[in-house]
Amino acid sequence: MNKKMLIGLCYGNGYGFQSGAWRMPGVDPKSYGDFDVVVKHAQAAERGKFHFVFLPDAFGRLADVENEPPAETLDVMLTLGAIARETSHIGLLATASTTFNEPYNVARQFKALDVMSHGRAGWNAVTSSSNDAAANYGVNIPSSEDRYGRAHEAVQLVQALWGSWGCDAWVHDQASGVFAKQGQIRPINLQGKYVGSRGPLYIPPSEQGQPIIVHAGGSHNAHELAGRFASVVIGAVFTIEDARAQREAFRAAAKCYGRDPDEIKFFAGIMTTITKDRRTALDRRIQLTENHFSQRIAYLQQMLGIPLYENPLDEPLTKEQLANARPSPYDPRSANALKIAKEGWSLRDIIAHGVIDYHPVIVGPGVEAADHMQEWFEAGACDGFWILPDVFHDGIDAFVDEVVPILQERGLFHKDYEGKTLRENLGVPDQYGIDPRLKK
Amino acid sequence: MNKKMLIGLCYGNGYGFQSGAWRMPGVDPKSYGDFDVVVKHAQAAERGKFHFVFLPDAFGRLADVENEPPAETLDVMLTLGAIARETSHIGLLATASTTFNEPYNVARQFKALDVMSHGRAGWNAVTSSSNDAAANYGVNIPSSEDRYGRAHEAVQLVQALWGSWGCDAWVHDQASGVFAKQGQIRPINLQGKYVGSRGPLYIPPSEQGQPIIVHAGGSHNAHELAGRFASVVIGAVFTIEDARAQREAFRAAAKCYGRDPDEIKFFAGIMTTITKDRRTALDRRIQLTENHFSQRIAYLQQMLGIPLYENPLDEPLTKEQLANARPSPYDPRSANALKIAKEGWSLRDIIAHGVIDYHPVIVGPGVEAADHMQEWFEAGACDGFWILPDVFHDGIDAFVDEVVPILQERGLFHKDYEGKTLRENLGVPDQYGIDPRLKK
Ligand SMILES: Cc1cc2nc3c(=O)[nH]c(=O)nc-3n(C[C@H](O)[C@H](O)[C@H](O)COP(=O)(O)O)c2cc1C
Ligand SMILES: Cc1cc2nc3c(=O)[nH]c(=O)nc-3n(C[C@H](O)[C@H](O)[C@H](O)COP(=O)(O)O)c2cc1C
Repeated sequence: MNKKMLIGLCYGNGYGFQSGAWRMPGVDPKSYGDFDVVVKHAQAAERGKFHFVFLPDAFGRLADVENEPPAETLDVMLTLGAIARETSHIGLLATASTTFNEPYNVARQFKALDVMSHGRAGWNAVTSSSNDAAANYGVNIPSSEDRYGRAHEAVQLVQALWGSWGCDAWVHDQASGVFAKQGQIRPINLQGKYVGSRGPLYIPPSEQGQPIIVHAGGSHNAHELAGRFASVVIGAVFTIEDARAQREAFRAAAKCYGRDPDEIKFFAGIMTTITKDRRTALDRRIQLTENHFSQRIAYLQQMLGIPLYENPLDEPLTKEQLANARPSPYDPRSANALKIAKEGWSLRDIIAHGVIDYHPVIVGPGVEAADHMQEWFEAGACDGFWILPDVFHDGIDAFVDEVVPILQERGLFHKDYEGKTLRENLGVPDQYGIDPRLKK
Repeated sequence: MNKKMLIGLCYGNGYGFQSGAWRMPGVDPKSYGDFDVVVKHAQAAERGKFHFVFLPDAFGRLADVENEPPAETLDVMLTLGAIARETSHIGLLATASTTFNEPYNVARQFKALDVMSHGRAGWNAVTSSSNDAAANYGVNIPSSEDRYGRAHEAVQLVQALWGSWGCDAWVHDQASGVFAKQGQIRPINLQGKYVGSRGPLYIPPSEQGQPIIVHAGGSHNAHELAGRFASVVIGAVFTIEDARAQREAFRAAAKCYGRDPDEIKFFAGIMTTITKDRRTALDRRIQLTENHFSQRIAYLQQMLGIPLYENPLDEPLTKEQLANARPSPYDPRSANALKIAKEGWSLRDIIAHGVIDYHPVIVGPGVEAADHMQEWFEAGACDGFWILPDVFHDGIDAFVDEVVPILQERGLFHKDYEGKTLRENLGVPDQYGIDPRLKK
């Protein structure tokens, strides 16, 4: 097998994806909003030949700001702008809602970033689904039909604007005085039900032509949108079976739109705590998540279908509890939780394994992450992984130093960037303007 | 007189404000969209202790792209983000239309830039008035009443969002585990006729608290909006009398809103071609503007009320023509055009003096710029100047090396930055959230 896996870094507030990251030794508590810190972390990922940095955008949801930082960067475009200037190869993916942004504004910011970064930008075109997000705009969240209807129009319109400055229009010939061929810079004149624009956009092609489209979502509507437009899908999946099914659904949708399914790269998330051994890693997770312990025990009870509130934290579940436990069919993480419990870990350690987190969790030495990734990749569960480190300060370096070399040795991950642009590095086909296969 | 003038650089496409700038010797014809070039130019302005870089935004109007570059940068926020990372003191003003941007999106991008730049950001809050701009959003331009109605709500809402993360909320105390005081981060719950938002914004105060408000416009509505909110007004004025009247109108409006008129700094524009002597400067302007000569002669005829289409370019106007000439009352540039004509310059040189351009034009040695600026400043025509150099490549340096030292020697311009933040350097009072004087 010659195909290699792809790896991206999910990035956020400057601390990491565990709630206690901001309090860890060595972490500057003022990292939130410190762009020097951001750049340092992106450079660490580039050292590890990561394909991209991916920035979610949750409109600053402040879940528990008394104890935890907001999850995201101050602004996705400014963050990627800073990274673009101080890195050379790593891709730059930002989330911008199709629900709450004007296509013309998205088109120009992302194409500007693409030119600025010499062809490394991607737009995570999501629909926003929460009333919390909508409240920032003084409105209620639209229906799914309206959100996805607008999303389809918005992506098309943005891509049309990207292509409106013709590929060869910019001649900048000082001798003759021809700056650009006016006839090759054309208005798009698109007017949909939700959005419209005349254009043209005033930005020449980047070194990769235009940004790639990314999508994050799991519903049928998400399959359709991504199948039509996306080169990268950021998935949320807990098991190989679930991942394969999701990946297949996206690939099938791509096929329906006349695309080669391999044009969509499906990414599974993993949350990482990489240390020299399992015990050290568990202790680190315990330190990182102490705020959430009681809440997670309550979850675990539901996942296993047994009462746990009287269990001592330092002891394994009793034989009787393990015999009575039944993985909940409503939570895809339950089988893994029961497997860990049966290995005899204490209640505290079961939780510390990350059996209740947003993605599969690796808690241990680098080889365990490499094994997990190899298994998923070879099972066709995904084309790559987006990594959510526990603490950025040392967690990116731990992945780069302890996991990446193993994957490279096993021939599973590239040793260097294939090219300069994101399309080259991901193996995504060229596209400029709207995909001609979709013009029907 | 101890008061010093303020100076900002108007910046755009990477070439300069004369149409032929991109063809000048030494200018890289690919400067459009080259962020290395942008940063170099901003650093030149910072060397000259300029108070700010100001970026207009004309939604990529492509007037004559066959012969001339678009006027503006690819994206104002990414451009200022790059400059923020590679300068330390110069202020960063970007234009963002209140008509075509959601307040929440403006609020977070500008406050993020303010944090990123350590307190150097300003928002030029304009209303868009052209159908060309509106067409990019698939709509028609709203009425002036609706545009300014929305602008008033938008600025208030953005400032309320800026202040929604309380000044002292962010404690980031690793020992106690308190990240921020939740009770000091409060929703704003503002709903107007045009825009609304619940908030809060998730961004802590910058080193200057929050960005300053800038406005550019000259109508009665503009006076009102700026009088209420702005610290800086970017003016468009041709004569001292006009500038004084404009400045007074803004100051009077500020007073009506209970503010000290000195809180508004009014800026007059000047377009510069600075060389060792007048002749060299005229030749440079001729080289820069050859595309526009015939069109400008047509204008000049109207301004002077005499036919000029048969005049040889190399000769002065005839005695008879000068005797018959009457400055047009409809064009404030006419008196100056007649004055130059009477000095005996050839028709080509009259035009080359920039008698038909968007602002007063300095064509000559640095001392002429300094004299102009001193005269206007001491006449109370303005608090400072925004400089539009003919060619950025060497025109910023020419101003910094030939004009700035004279102004400094005369005690008219600061020798170094007063502080680190834009508020400190401009002498603009502190403000966080909505101005309490306007809450009534
Ligand atoms: C892995 C993943 C990441 C996501 N990231 C974002 C994000 O950063 N910002 C956002 O507004 N929505 C994000 N979403 C939300 C989705 O776009 C969508 O709103 C949500 O999945 C509901 O989708 P549905 O309407 O298709 O059911 C993400 C979804 C997934 C699965
Ligand atoms: C000096 C100056 C600079 C301006 N810069 C911009 C700009 O960069 N972008 C923009 O959309 N409008 C800009 N404007 C336009 C004004 O905001 C406004 O739309 C125009 O002056 C019409 O205003 P009115 O509706 O008050 O008459 C500028 C105006 C002036 C006077």
